[in-house]
Amino acid sequence: MEQQLRGKVVVAQGGGPTAVINQSLVGVVLESRKFPQITKVYGAVNGVNGIINENFLDLTQETTNNLERVAATPSSALGSTRDKPDAAYCEEIFEVFRMHDVRYFFYIGGNDSADTVRIVNEQAEKSHYDFRAIHIPKTIDNDLMFNDHTPGYPSAARFVAQSFIGLNLDNRALPGVHVAVVMGRHAGFLTAASAIAQKYPDDGPHLIYVPERPFTIEKFLSDIDKTYKRYGRCVVAVSEGIQDENGTPILSLFKDYGTDAHGNVQLSGTGALGEVLVQQIKDNLEIGRVRSDTFGYLQRSFMGCVSDVDQREAREVGEKAAQFAIWHDTDGSITINRTGYYSVDYQIRPLSDIAAKTKLMPDEFINADANNVTDAFKYYLQPLLGSAMPEASRLRAPAAAKIRL
Amino acid sequence: MEQQLRGKVVVAQGGGPTAVINQSLVGVVLESRKFPQITKVYGAVNGVNGIINENFLDLTQETTNNLERVAATPSSALGSTRDKPDAAYCEEIFEVFRMHDVRYFFYIGGNDSADTVRIVNEQAEKSHYDFRAIHIPKTIDNDLMFNDHTPGYPSAARFVAQSFIGLNLDNRALPGVHVAVVMGRHAGFLTAASAIAQKYPDDGPHLIYVPERPFTIEKFLSDIDKTYKRYGRCVVAVSEGIQDENGTPILSLFKDYGTDAHGNVQLSGTGALGEVLVQQIKDNLEIGRVRSDTFGYLQRSFMGCVSDVDQREAREVGEKAAQFAIWHDTDGSITINRTGYYSVDYQIRPLSDIAAKTKLMPDEFINADANNVTDAFKYYLQPLLGSAMPEASRLRAPAAAKIRL
Repeated sequence: MEQQLRGKVVVAQGGGPTAVINQSLVGVVLESRKFPQITKVYGAVNGVNGIINENFLDLTQETTNNLERVAATPSSALGSTRDKPDAAYCEEIFEVFRMHDVRYFFYIGGNDSADTVRIVNEQAEKSHYDFRAIHIPKTIDNDLMFNDHTPGYPSAARFVAQSFIGLNLDNRALPGVHVAVVMGRHAGFLTAASAIAQKYPDDGPHLIYVPERPFTIEKFLSDIDKTYKRYGRCVVAVSEGIQDENGTPILSLFKDYGTDAHGNVQLSGTGALGEVLVQQIKDNLEIGRVRSDTFGYLQRSFMGCVSDVDQREAREVGEKAAQFAIWHDTDGSITINRTGYYSVDYQIRPLSDIAAKTKLMPDEFINADANNVTDAFKYYLQPLLGSAMPEASRLRAPAAAKIRL
Repeated sequence: MEQQLRGKVVVAQGGGPTAVINQSLVGVVLESRKFPQITKVYGAVNGVNGIINENFLDLTQETTNNLERVAATPSSALGSTRDKPDAAYCEEIFEVFRMHDVRYFFYIGGNDSADTVRIVNEQAEKSHYDFRAIHIPKTIDNDLMFNDHTPGYPSAARFVAQSFIGLNLDNRALPGVHVAVVMGRHAGFLTAASAIAQKYPDDGPHLIYVPERPFTIEKFLSDIDKTYKRYGRCVVAVSEGIQDENGTPILSLFKDYGTDAHGNVQLSGTGALGEVLVQQIKDNLEIGRVRSDTFGYLQRSFMGCVSDVDQREAREVGEKAAQFAIWHDTDGSITINRTGYYSVDYQIRPLSDIAAKTKLMPDEFINADANNVTDAFKYYLQPLLGSAMPEASRLRAPAAAKIRL
């Protein structure tokens, strides 16, 4: 196949950081640098914001060794942005691209980023400017359509799983009720990953609540009561985005809460939901020790908890993006498709398939009682967690005979 | 040396779990099992509570292989307790010991546990019951007297360091102010460990507040204002136990707060302090994005973030305890003493040296401005973190030339 579209590459990172988003960046950079028709590889600083301000790093002049070190570093090395471009903003992006003779645009991000790529690409087409634009998937929420899973999710899931292995052990040593709040505004995939901690039959999390099922305080309290009576303790995983049957966030039923620039309720970076739930348990059940944790930003940025499967795939979606655009002259969004247990392949799909859409957990991943996950979910998640997943072990020594009665 | 004191061993774990407390347990068990005069090795379930209820596991009948797996598992495998025995409670402990012909008692815990060992031992002496009791150090707070550091601290410090490496990167990608609250009621050692994230000159945490220095909101806000003006962002590490010049916890200046069975303010397991500080910043400074995280229970229980130096030392204090008691017929508390950079040795000290006392950070570890640590502290901490400590790397590519002006 011949491809003569000559010019610059721009790569950018959008939205919340992940443990492996720099793998995708480095995949794009190293692959693009192989092609003689690529004149430069630019990295936009702070996502689309760096494009309209012409704030670019010349990644053609970065060492391979440092790129590899950056790939192994969490968070967005180029910086990110929460800017959500409208048509006028995209017009500006396109103008800068034309001025710099940018012919390839790779945007690593979630469904908002896919939408930006879609709009910029339409403007290039309207202007008959020869231009390839590819969205590269990234999100710890695992909520992109047509993807078996998204880069960033497996490592965040691993962090959540390792956290719950620890919290379950802590709760077993000092019994009580422990509620831990996990990121996930609409999709429960990340919270569901807590289920990996269920090794021994009475291991927590004993209860898992995701946004895909309506949440009521009554059912929540009754579930905890039953669990506590059975095991003398209870570990609960809760998505920050749990909502009632009308779609109203549970947190908002209890207190005033902030909204961000997009009108979204600010759920992260506050222990409020955990505290509200703890108070409900204390007020309504006779349980002495009730605690909560809110995992917060550690879920997406913790240094040193990463799935090697996730690293490899994040690198590959970056490489494949460069290959699809430069070899095959294609636009679109890269998707990860599961082809075996466990193997994947990558496809490219129309941007409109991914842009501004949200995938939720399928029904077969959530139990009938809406307070746990199924084995089907665990089977789905297991291979994503990568190698050397740590595992907890218990003493199994027999009880000694008592002397006093 | 000859030693004929024949009977059972009881080992127990007290207080908050750590990542390596089971290493000490297994050190005691494996070492004790080597001695022919040890008739059984019992583990008390839930600390001293398991003793008075004769709730023992017969660890003589546990496999070596499973013990090794348990050693690598965080949290207290025998269960723990917050019971703080008074004289009557200790009398009951002693009665059970006598009944079971227990001649050796090993209690792994903090300064409260050391005090329990001291009282039980005094009662044995008064009763002319031949008995050895040893306290084995454990606490993520690193606040035991006469110890260079305590088992559990290095791994928790590593968790805090890896967390701040990530939070600093996250804050660099999406700038604003990020306040993260770390465990530590009286001693700031754990919060101070955040300083390991300061790799590049402008890396956070930019500000570190420990309980050893009086905290004022005015100074805090002025520090953040200066940092934000300089770097356009600010990462702050705060001990949960920060207090004003009268020793009043800062949190209690702002809202009602709970107390636990010991009359201690409940600082952990709530995001309250972080939220109070965030609100102060929002109310008083013109900064848009202000977030907080509270690390909570993950600091002491997270599965898979451990210092191998800590593992080795925690194992050794358990082994040495058994050796001091069984070979050398000694009571006391095992201490870790630094003998080189980096090497340690273990001593045994009178229980009263350790019991119910708290070590704070020495002055030379805190900077003059009381808002950061010194290089002396970093030099102290570095070897404790263990091998394969992850490190963040940045892009160093040159900026590209702008075309528009």
